[in-house]
Amino acid sequence: MQKLNINNNEVAFYALGGLGEIGKNMYCVQFQDEIIVIDCGVLFPEDELLGVDYVIQDYTYLVENKDKIKAIVITHGHEDHIGGLPFFLQQVNVPIYSGPFALSLIKGKLEEKHLLRTAELIEVQEDTILKFNKMSVSFFRTTHSIPDALGVAVHTPQGTIVETGDFKFDLTPVGGLPSPNLQKMAALGENGVLLLASDSTNAERPEFSKSEQWVDVHIRRVFEKIKGRIIFASFASNVYRLREASDEAMRQGRMIAVVGRSMENAIAAGQELGYLNIPEEVLIDPNEINSYPPEKVLIMCTGSQGEPMAALSRIAAGTHRQITIQPGDTVVFSSNPIPGNTTSVNQLINKLDEAGAEVVHGYLNNIHASGHGGQLEQELMLRLMKPKFFMPIHGEFRMLEVHSKLAELTGIPKENRFTMENGDVLALTKDSARIADHIETAGDVYIDGRDVGDSVGNPEIRERRLLSEEGVVTAIAVVDLKDHQIVAGPDIVSRGFVYMHESQELIKAANHEVFWAILNTFKSRKKIDERALNRTIVSRLQKLLYAQTGRRPVIIPMVTIINNED
Amino acid sequence: MQKLNINNNEVAFYALGGLGEIGKNMYCVQFQDEIIVIDCGVLFPEDELLGVDYVIQDYTYLVENKDKIKAIVITHGHEDHIGGLPFFLQQVNVPIYSGPFALSLIKGKLEEKHLLRTAELIEVQEDTILKFNKMSVSFFRTTHSIPDALGVAVHTPQGTIVETGDFKFDLTPVGGLPSPNLQKMAALGENGVLLLASDSTNAERPEFSKSEQWVDVHIRRVFEKIKGRIIFASFASNVYRLREASDEAMRQGRMIAVVGRSMENAIAAGQELGYLNIPEEVLIDPNEINSYPPEKVLIMCTGSQGEPMAALSRIAAGTHRQITIQPGDTVVFSSNPIPGNTTSVNQLINKLDEAGAEVVHGYLNNIHASGHGGQLEQELMLRLMKPKFFMPIHGEFRMLEVHSKLAELTGIPKENRFTMENGDVLALTKDSARIADHIETAGDVYIDGRDVGDSVGNPEIRERRLLSEEGVVTAIAVVDLKDHQIVAGPDIVSRGFVYMHESQELIKAANHEVFWAILNTFKSRKKIDERALNRTIVSRLQKLLYAQTGRRPVIIPMVTIINNED
Repeated sequence: MQKLNINNNEVAFYALGGLGEIGKNMYCVQFQDEIIVIDCGVLFPEDELLGVDYVIQDYTYLVENKDKIKAIVITHGHEDHIGGLPFFLQQVNVPIYSGPFALSLIKGKLEEKHLLRTAELIEVQEDTILKFNKMSVSFFRTTHSIPDALGVAVHTPQGTIVETGDFKFDLTPVGGLPSPNLQKMAALGENGVLLLASDSTNAERPEFSKSEQWVDVHIRRVFEKIKGRIIFASFASNVYRLREASDEAMRQGRMIAVVGRSMENAIAAGQELGYLNIPEEVLIDPNEINSYPPEKVLIMCTGSQGEPMAALSRIAAGTHRQITIQPGDTVVFSSNPIPGNTTSVNQLINKLDEAGAEVVHGYLNNIHASGHGGQLEQELMLRLMKPKFFMPIHGEFRMLEVHSKLAELTGIPKENRFTMENGDVLALTKDSARIADHIETAGDVYIDGRDVGDSVGNPEIRERRLLSEEGVVTAIAVVDLKDHQIVAGPDIVSRGFVYMHESQELIKAANHEVFWAILNTFKSRKKIDERALNRTIVSRLQKLLYAQTGRRPVIIPMVTIINNED
Repeated sequence: MQKLNINNNEVAFYALGGLGEIGKNMYCVQFQDEIIVIDCGVLFPEDELLGVDYVIQDYTYLVENKDKIKAIVITHGHEDHIGGLPFFLQQVNVPIYSGPFALSLIKGKLEEKHLLRTAELIEVQEDTILKFNKMSVSFFRTTHSIPDALGVAVHTPQGTIVETGDFKFDLTPVGGLPSPNLQKMAALGENGVLLLASDSTNAERPEFSKSEQWVDVHIRRVFEKIKGRIIFASFASNVYRLREASDEAMRQGRMIAVVGRSMENAIAAGQELGYLNIPEEVLIDPNEINSYPPEKVLIMCTGSQGEPMAALSRIAAGTHRQITIQPGDTVVFSSNPIPGNTTSVNQLINKLDEAGAEVVHGYLNNIHASGHGGQLEQELMLRLMKPKFFMPIHGEFRMLEVHSKLAELTGIPKENRFTMENGDVLALTKDSARIADHIETAGDVYIDGRDVGDSVGNPEIRERRLLSEEGVVTAIAVVDLKDHQIVAGPDIVSRGFVYMHESQELIKAANHEVFWAILNTFKSRKKIDERALNRTIVSRLQKLLYAQTGRRPVIIPMVTIINNED
C-alpha cells in the first residue's frame, strides 16, 4: 500500500484518469486523511481494443484508501464523467454528490446494476456547500452540452482548488436556460484560486464556441424548408438541442415522437427538471406516427453516431419495429461524428440515402456547436480565476500543451504550470507546487461485457489483436499426473490460422511438439506445475509455428489434469 | 431655460452626443442638483460637411445648468471622447477626472489652447472613488486600442448606472499590459446594475475581436521577412501597437526613429507611464537615419489614415524634410482605413508604390485588430453586469438596434431596453425606467477652423454644399436710408455660377431685379428693415435665376446702409 511521498501540510491533486485522453475522468484532492474524488467516468475504447466495452481507471489506490474518501462529486452527466460509478461503487461505497440532471442519469445507471438501494446519492445545487472536517466543496454553474454542468471548488487549508468540469461559455443559451455564473467564477478568482485545473478539449481551436442560440436559429432555417417528416438525431443528453428541435417543431405544429431508450430517459428527465416544456398532448407514441400527415411529425431519435443497435441505424436498415424511411423524410443530424465514428456515420448516411431519405449534416448546416470552449473561453476562465498554479486537464497531451501555452499568455509563468500524467501527484502549499510522487497503480482497466467485474487485462487485448490478425491454435490434452500419462490427446484445433487448415503436416508436427513437451515435463520435474506445463507447450508451439509459417497465432493450451498429487 | 420633466426622485440619463453616430460622445447622469458628465468628444465630419473641422455637441443645456455639474469623467483619450474639452471648458469650467494616459493627451490639448492654467485636471486610477453629495463614481479597467481605458459606474440613490466607455475584452494583451478587470465588472453585476449603457460600435460583427497578442505574432512574421527599412504607420494613441512594433524591431536589432508630432507625444506618454520600454539609446533622431544600414532602422510615423499633412503623406509625396522613400523600404500599415478615409489611403498607397516602397496592408496581413468588442464581447459585458435596464450607446442607429437585440438574447425584456436619440432623457428609479423628456437644445455644432468659438451653423453647411455645387452670386449695393437713395450699385458678382459667366443678359436682369427690390422696399415701408431688404433681394434673385437657368446658386446680398434713421 503506497503512502504518498508528500509533506503533511501539503495538499495533493492527482488524476487517475483524464490526462492524455478524452475519457475516464477522475480527479482527486487529498489533504491528510481526507480525499475528495471529482468524477468517475469511462473511456470508450477505440477500435483497436477489440471487444472491450469500456476502459476505466485502475483505482487500486483509492480502494486501499477508501476510509479517507469523503465524497465523489460529479460535474455533469456525460459517460466520461459518471460511467465508471457502477464499477467504483462495487468496491468503495461513498456518498455521491451531483446536480439534478446527472443524478437522474446516475440513478438509471445504478438501478440497471441493482446498486441503487445501497448507493448514497445526494442532490446538490449551485449554491450547495459541502463541509467536511478539513476541506469543503462549493460549485459554480457553467454551460456544456448537457444541463446542470457544474464547476467544483475544493477549499483546502492551503487554498482553493478549482476543477472546471467540461465547459463552454454559452452567453445566450436557448429557452431561458441559465448561462454561466460569471459572478461566482470572478468571486472565486477575487478571493484567490491556488490551482486551476481546466478542460482542455478544444485547446487547439482559436475560437469562442458558437452558442446554442446560433444553432437554434439554424435549426429553424432547416426545419422551415422541410415539408415531410423530420427525423432528428442528436446526443440524447444534449437537452439544449432537444429543446431547440422540439420548440421549432411545435412552432410548425408538428407532433413529437421519441424513439430510443436513452432519448426517452433524457426527455423524461428534461421535462421533469423543467429544461423541456413539451406538452403531453404533443408527445405521441411511435406507433401513432402514421395517423398524422408527414408535415406534422417530428421523430427525435438516438443513433447520431452510427451506433449499430441505436434507433437510427435500425431505421436506416429497415429493421425498426415502428419506423421505416419513406419518400419525403429528412434526417437531420444535429451532431458531428466523434473522430472514431466517422466511418460508421458515413455508412449510416449512405443507408439512409439509399432508403430514400434526405440527409442534413451537422456542422455543414450550422446545426451543431461544440460543448467545449475554444481558446478564447479557456483564456476567459483563466482570467476569471486568476489562479496561482495551473494544470490543464481533460484532453490528449497535445491539447494539454496548447492549453498550458494559453495560460502563459494570461501571465502564468512556466514554473507555475503543470502538464501531468495520470497518477502524477501535485503537492501544493499556499505558495508552492511540485510534482512530488506518482501513484504506482494508476493505469487502465478494460471492461468486457455489460456486467460489473468483467475486467480484462492488457494481455487479453494483445491476444485479441493477434486473434484478429493471425487466428488461434488450441492444444488439448488430458494428463494423469499420478501415473505420468497422457490420457487423451494431444489434439490440435485451429481457427483462423490459415496455414494449419492447409497442411496436415503442420498439424502433425504441432501434435508432436505438444506430446514431447508433456513427456519432458514428466521427466524433468518431480512435482508437476500446471502453469509451467502450459508455458512450455505455448513456447514450443510458438517456435515451431513461427519457424514453419513466419506467423504468431494465439496459442491456447488446454491441458486437463486428473489425479493431481496434491 | 429647460427644466427636465422628471420626478424629483428620478435619476436622469441622457446623451448630448454619441447616439446615432460614432463620435462626440457625451453622456450625463443627473440627480436633482447634481450632474456627472461622462466624456466630451468631437465628431470628425464626413466629406459632405465642407470645411467643417469638427462637430461638437450643442451643450446649451449644460451651460444653463453649469452650477449642477460636479465633474467631467473621461473614459479614455480618443478624440471622440476628449476632443471637445477645449470648447466645453471655455463655457463651463468644472473638474476633469481622467486616467493617466488620457490626462497626458488632455494636457497637451489644453496647453495648445492656453487653457491649461485654469483647468482643473485630476488623475484617477482604477480604484479611485469620487464622492459627491448625492452620487459617487467608481471605475473599472477595460481594454481598448489605447491604454488606460476605463468603464465608469455612477452610483446614484436609485442604483448604479454603468457606462462602459469603448471596450473590447483583450484577454491576452501584449507585454504584460493589464487585461480587463473581470472581477470588478462581475462584482458590479453581483451588487446590482440599474442601467448598463454599453459601446455598440461592433454590434454587427458576430465575433470576439482578435487580441493584440495575435496582432503581435503577425507583426513578428511580417517584420521577419523585411530586409530593408521598415516604416510603421499606425494610430499614434494605439500604444499597444507601438509596443509590439518596437519590441519586434529591437528583437531584430533595429534603431527606432519617431516621426510626426502626435506619434512623438504618444511615445513620450507611453514611455513615461511604463507602457513602452524603449531604451534611450535605441531611439534615434530622424536626421540620423542614414547613418544606419537599412536593415537596422524602424521608422514609426503618423498618417496611416492618409491625412494629407501627416508624416506618411509627405514621405510618399517626397516633401518630407528628413525621409525619402528608397528602394527596399517597406511601409507597414498596422491599421485599417476608417470608412471615410478609404480613398485617401488608397491614393497614399499608390504614391508609396510609385515611389518604390513595398506596402503591407493591415487586415490583409493580420496586423490590425479592432479596438471594439464584437457581439460575443457585448454579450459578455451584459452577462457580467446583469443590468435591469439596458441602453446601447456609441454607435449608429442600426448598431444600437443590433446591440439591443443581443441584450434580448441575454434575457433583458423589450420594455427594459431603450434605444434613444441624443437629447432623449431616460428617467430611472430603482424599479422603473421611461423616456420622460427631450433636451430641446440637443444637436450639432459645427466648428470651422482651429480656434475655440469658430462655430458654424447648419444653414452654413447647406450653403457650402450649394456653393460647391452651384456657385455664388453676390449683389452689392450702398443704400442711403435717409434720402431713400441707392448711392452705389447694385453690382452683381458671381463665382462658380457658370450661367452668369456666359451671359451679360443674365447679369443685367439680375441687376434690374435688385434695383427694383430696393426701390420697392423704399416705397412699401416707412421704416427700412435691413434684414427684410436682404430677404427680398435674395428671394427675387432666386426666382429670376431659377426661372432662367434652373439652378439655385447661393445668393449673398451685401447691402451697405448709410445714414440709418435710428
